[in-house]
Amino acid sequence: MTEYTVSPEGVSHVACVGAGVIGGGWVAHFLARGYRVTAWDPADDAADKLRRLVEAAWPALTELGLAEGASREHLTVASTLEEAVAEAQFVQESAPETLEIKQDLLARIDAATPTDVVISSSTSGHGMTEMQVDCPTPQRLVVGHPFNPPYLIPLVEVVGGEKTDQSAVRWASEFFEVAGKSVITMDHEVPGFIANRLQEAIWREALHMVANGEATPAQLDASITEGPGLRWPLLGPCLTFHLAGGEGGMAHMLDHFGPSLKSPWTRLEAPELTDELRNRMVEGCEEAAEGRDIAELVADRDRAIIEVMRVVDNVRKGAS
Amino acid sequence: MTEYTVSPEGVSHVACVGAGVIGGGWVAHFLARGYRVTAWDPADDAADKLRRLVEAAWPALTELGLAEGASREHLTVASTLEEAVAEAQFVQESAPETLEIKQDLLARIDAATPTDVVISSSTSGHGMTEMQVDCPTPQRLVVGHPFNPPYLIPLVEVVGGEKTDQSAVRWASEFFEVAGKSVITMDHEVPGFIANRLQEAIWREALHMVANGEATPAQLDASITEGPGLRWPLLGPCLTFHLAGGEGGMAHMLDHFGPSLKSPWTRLEAPELTDELRNRMVEGCEEAAEGRDIAELVADRDRAIIEVMRVVDNVRKGAS
Repeated sequence: MTEYTVSPEGVSHVACVGAGVIGGGWVAHFLARGYRVTAWDPADDAADKLRRLVEAAWPALTELGLAEGASREHLTVASTLEEAVAEAQFVQESAPETLEIKQDLLARIDAATPTDVVISSSTSGHGMTEMQVDCPTPQRLVVGHPFNPPYLIPLVEVVGGEKTDQSAVRWASEFFEVAGKSVITMDHEVPGFIANRLQEAIWREALHMVANGEATPAQLDASITEGPGLRWPLLGPCLTFHLAGGEGGMAHMLDHFGPSLKSPWTRLEAPELTDELRNRMVEGCEEAAEGRDIAELVADRDRAIIEVMRVVDNVRKGAS
Repeated sequence: MTEYTVSPEGVSHVACVGAGVIGGGWVAHFLARGYRVTAWDPADDAADKLRRLVEAAWPALTELGLAEGASREHLTVASTLEEAVAEAQFVQESAPETLEIKQDLLARIDAATPTDVVISSSTSGHGMTEMQVDCPTPQRLVVGHPFNPPYLIPLVEVVGGEKTDQSAVRWASEFFEVAGKSVITMDHEVPGFIANRLQEAIWREALHMVANGEATPAQLDASITEGPGLRWPLLGPCLTFHLAGGEGGMAHMLDHFGPSLKSPWTRLEAPELTDELRNRMVEGCEEAAEGRDIAELVADRDRAIIEVMRVVDNVRKGAS
C-alpha cells in the first residue's frame, strides 16, 4: 500500500498533461478552485490556445464563485513534460484517445512524477488496465473521467486498473471531491464507465434512426430538449421511472410495464427482468430517493422543470 | 378526405378519456390553456383523484401563466364515456397500455364522438395501425404521445396509422401547437416513436448494468444528473456531439471518433457509419444549429448549464 505524503485536502499544486478541450477545461477548473497549475502540451500553439480557453471560461467561473485566492496568474505552461510534473501533488492526463499514445505518455508521466503522487487519466474509453502496462509504478494510476466542459459539469468517474492500489482510487475520489467535483467511484472497470454507456446507447439508437430515415437530427434533438431532457438535470433515468409508477413507484412500474421490455422500442435487447433485478431496482430507487416520497419527488421535479424551461427559454432568446 | 368543422384554433371543448397520471395531466394542461374539459374514467375514485391532481398542478400552471379565462371550474367529470365525448371538439385517450383495452376503448370512443372530430391516443408504445382495427371511422384517429407530466413537458409526438388520413395528422399537430405543446410530426410509425426509443435505450443499458452489478440505480442517476443530463435541456444528443468535435463540429467528430462506435461501450450495436449516414448527420446538425456556429453554441451551452445547475441546487436545498 502506497503512502501519499500529501493528503487530498493538502494539495495546492496540480499538473495537467495535454491541454486541448478537455485538458484545458481541467486547467480552468483547477485554477478556479484556487490551485497552482502547471500545464504541458506538445502542440506548438498549445500555450496560446490554453490561455484563450481559460480567458473564455473565466467569466462563467467567476459567476459560479471562485475559490479564495484563485487566479489565472497561477498557471505556468511548462516547456517539457518532466518540468510540468516535477513538483506536482496530483497529475491529470488528457491526451488524445489513442491507446498507444496513452500507454507511452502515462509511462513517461509515471517515470517523472514523485512516486507518492496519484496520476489520473481523463480517458473516456480506455481501461486503466490496458493503459498502465508500461508504467513503473502502476499502483498509483487511476481513471478520472470528466465531462465536457470539465470546468462546469461536476461529474468525474473514478476507477482503477488491475494493478492499481485501491488506496489510490480512494485518494483520487477524495481529492476530486475536495476540488469541487461530483464523484462516482466504481468498484471495477467497465468499458465506457457509467455515463458514457448510457449516453452511447442513446447515440447509437439515434444513428440507427437517421440511417433508417426514421428521424432527422433536429427531430432527435427536439425529442430530448422538449421532452425527457427537461427532467434529467434533477432526476436520472431510475428515479424518472420510479415516478412513472405513480404512487407505487419503481415496484409498480416494473410489475406492470415489465413486459414492455420485450417490445422492439430500441435495437438494444433488454435483460431478463428476474426477481433479483426487480428487487435491486426497487431498493436502489429507495436509496436514490433519499427518504423523499413520491409526492415530494413530484413536487421537486415540477419546480425544477418550470425553472429549467425558463432558463432554456432565456438562453434561446438571448442567443446571438 | 375528412372535413373538420372546427379548426385547430377554434377548439374550446376537449374530452379526456382515462384520468390517471397521464390523462389527469392532460386535463390539467387543457384547463390551464383555457379549454373546457369533460373527463371520464371507469375507476370508482377517479373523480376525486383527478381533482386532487389538478389541485396539485395548479400552482405550477399559474406560475407558468394561465391562458385568459382558464379555470379549474371548467372541468366536468362525466358519468359515461358517451356523455364525455358527445360534444367534444377533440378527444384525448389515456387508458392503460394494454392493446385490447386500447382497441375496445378507441372503438367505443369512435362510435360515440361526432365524426368530424379528431381522436388522439396517449399511447407510449402501441402503433395506431394495431389500435384502430375495430374503429368505424379510423381515418380520424392519431397518436398524440405526451411525456409525464403532460402539463409541464412540452413534447407531443404525432403520428397516424395505416388507415389514418394525413389530414387528421395535420389537424392534430396544429391543434397541439395551438394548445401550447412542442410537436414532432412523424411521417410513419416506428415502435416507441422517437423520444421513447432514445429513453428506452438508456433504460435497457441501465438495467443491464444493475443486473451485472456494474452500477447501482443511485450511481446511474448521478451519472446523468451530474453529467450529460445538465446539457440535454438545451442541446440534444446530436448537437451535444456536434460540440464534442471542437471547431470541426459533427464532421470532425464522426471522422475521428467514428471507430469508437465499434467499442463495447454499450450492449447496443451501432449501425455502419456509411458516407451517407455521416453526411446526413453533418447536414442535420447544421440544420439543428439554426445558423449558430460552434462558439455561439458553446457560449449558450455554458450559460444554460450554469443556470440549470443553480435551479437544481435551489430545488435540492428547498427539498422537504
